Amino acid sequence: MTRSPLITLTTDFGDSDGYVGAMKGVIAGLCPAARVWDISHSVPPQDVIAGSYILSQAAPYFPDGAIHVGVIDPGVGSDRRSLIVTSGGRYYVGPDNGLFTFAFGPDATAYRIETPMEASSTFHGRDLYAPTAARLANGETAADLGEAIDDPVMLAIWEKEREGGEIIGRVIHIDRFGNAITNLTPEDFEKPPLGFSIDRHGVPRQIPIKRTYAEVEIGNALWLVGSYGRYELSVREGHAAGRFGVERGDRVHALLDQ
Amino acid sequence: MTRSPLITLTTDFGDSDGYVGAMKGVIAGLCPAARVWDISHSVPPQDVIAGSYILSQAAPYFPDGAIHVGVIDPGVGSDRRSLIVTSGGRYYVGPDNGLFTFAFGPDATAYRIETPMEASSTFHGRDLYAPTAARLANGETAADLGEAIDDPVMLAIWEKEREGGEIIGRVIHIDRFGNAITNLTPEDFEKPPLGFSIDRHGVPRQIPIKRTYAEVEIGNALWLVGSYGRYELSVREGHAAGRFGVERGDRVHALLDQ
Amino acid sequence: MTRSPLITLTTDFGDSDGYVGAMKGVIAGLCPAARVWDISHSVPPQDVIAGSYILSQAAPYFPDGAIHVGVIDPGVGSDRRSLIVTSGGRYYVGPDNGLFTFAFGPDATAYRIETPMEASSTFHGRDLYAPTAARLANGETAADLGEAIDDPVMLAIWEKEREGGEIIGRVIHIDRFGNAITNLTPEDFEKPPLGFSIDRHGVPRQIPIKRTYAEVEIGNALWLVGSYGRYELSVREGHAAGRFGVERGDRVHALLDQ
Repeated sequence: MTRSPLITLTTDFGDSDGYVGAMKGVIAGLCPAARVWDISHSVPPQDVIAGSYILSQAAPYFPDGAIHVGVIDPGVGSDRRSLIVTSGGRYYVGPDNGLFTFAFGPDATAYRIETPMEASSTFHGRDLYAPTAARLANGETAADLGEAIDDPVMLAIWEKEREGGEIIGRVIHIDRFGNAITNLTPEDFEKPPLGFSIDRHGVPRQIPIKRTYAEVEIGNALWLVGSYGRYELSVREGHAAGRFGVERGDRVHALLDQ
Repeated sequence: MTRSPLITLTTDFGDSDGYVGAMKGVIAGLCPAARVWDISHSVPPQDVIAGSYILSQAAPYFPDGAIHVGVIDPGVGSDRRSLIVTSGGRYYVGPDNGLFTFAFGPDATAYRIETPMEASSTFHGRDLYAPTAARLANGETAADLGEAIDDPVMLAIWEKEREGGEIIGRVIHIDRFGNAITNLTPEDFEKPPLGFSIDRHGVPRQIPIKRTYAEVEIGNALWLVGSYGRYELSVREGHAAGRFGVERGDRVHALLDQ
Repeated sequence: MTRSPLITLTTDFGDSDGYVGAMKGVIAGLCPAARVWDISHSVPPQDVIAGSYILSQAAPYFPDGAIHVGVIDPGVGSDRRSLIVTSGGRYYVGPDNGLFTFAFGPDATAYRIETPMEASSTFHGRDLYAPTAARLANGETAADLGEAIDDPVMLAIWEKEREGGEIIGRVIHIDRFGNAITNLTPEDFEKPPLGFSIDRHGVPRQIPIKRTYAEVEIGNALWLVGSYGRYELSVREGHAAGRFGVERGDRVHALLDQ
């Protein structure tokens, strides 16, 4: 951990209220040396999948010891659990609703943390997750603060399956340009895949895999590896998801070269 | 004060302009060690009451020594005064228009600060409040920088009155879910209040006080204590302010159990 | 440079995605001591001129050693160059598309930096500009990292010309109140100018130059020096750009007193 601990915040609180500020204040009070950096507060309200994707775009670039707090928490006040996840030298703190699914590599461990008696029933970002992040920043360990569990909630959206001659992934995000971004990466394949298909009536199987947009004519579709190393379906200067009716969650079949 | 002073910013400048950045630059120049954290820049333009509420949601969670700059300043360029308020170990810097009313506890003092000759007539956030915050961060005291006054502008919205058998507060905020949040808290009462009424034709007196939403049927109204410890009027899975026509500023009567 | 290097970010990424967070993570990994502050992420998409103006509002207020990263980069993936600009003790890092034109004073130098082989073709903010800023923050010099060039791209919007008895500037921004802000400042003139005109049919030449709005009647037009020291065309309590049809880029003629 660096001398000045680094805590990031990702929420669906927007920025026209004082909720994010309250979390920052709690952290400053408990860990005066902490740096607190914003990742995003514009996650669509209660959209755990979008929050998970946004975190996956940013968190892995942070160095060892970074503490990522995520508060997209439609279940606050119910009996949903809360977690610290340790993964790749980084920490994730938030509700046990799948928000951190993307971080569950082989070295990840989830620790259940308890809601203190005095916590409000509607704002665990301030009353549980900010204090927990500050305690991690102060050097307490995840094992000090919680009990390891082996059944954290996982989002199906991040799952990949191998079935016969295929690897099956998911569309995990439709970006502002209409690109349908999958959870499949070149590292998933020993040899480059021969092609992809999507469980949607309108998506042709013969869309080529290319390196860049420039390799197809304007208006033509292609698969390529985007800036996050994930295969995505695009239309050059067009809107792929709109044209083909692709939605987040759709299953994506990769045809293996065996 | 912590080794690295902490300054927060709350403004109505939005984030599509360089005004907030200019304030950060001024602070960085005058106090190179400062941390500068955003609370909100999406206060509705010139809405001092909303700014005061947002600050009240966040600022009290910060530790001693924190310096909160607030710039919601419709009177800039007029003869409105400018203030440092010291309260509960924290500092508030901004226009004397009631923005810091919520912070005026018994230990608060307001100091009038003067606009320098060279200041612009339209951007005191950059030309007066940011430099003042930096000087406080560098260890100067409020008494060094201004003269104590005893008549700071106060927002009526934060006032509570005791009249006969009642304590009368105000609706201070309508949140995005339609909850009508008051300035009344359980600490205002020796014994729990028997009920509340609002000076609006459409608000029934017999709405029950409950601990959680789950204690009423969906669509029913209740009073409860929200995550900021304030009584609020809510409708379970509904929009209380819309249903009952409640507006910010409405007077709220608490019936005391005497 | 202060003990803790200061890097600012200005982009058109919005805040509902993880792109800004990825840049922050890269910087934190390469320069653990850095402070990273947001200027704006709401520059209109691909609007280099607006980005340049927003940076010009904020960056010059930062102290020596500040490193300003700007990513408004419609040409990413093409053969547009990338730059470090050193100017007035500050650093600017981003694409060579004119974004830093405002910073080119007499002491400015532009250094071309190369895109690493492993960079993505669509996200140089993460893959080139953030790492470059971190290396500057770690003490490497612009000359270490790039080769000086003498032909950086400049935006015409910032140009001033002297022609006969006139200095000719540009409208560089229309603000939210309809003020038409020019690149002309009092320092451009030995003696105060006699008046201004704009190359638009509807803008009368006889609009007076005043010190404050209060010197004209409500609804009347005036020229005045705004809070950034630039001449601007305004209408008291009105919308100057709308009334006179003024647009960004319009040429502004100052009549000199010779």
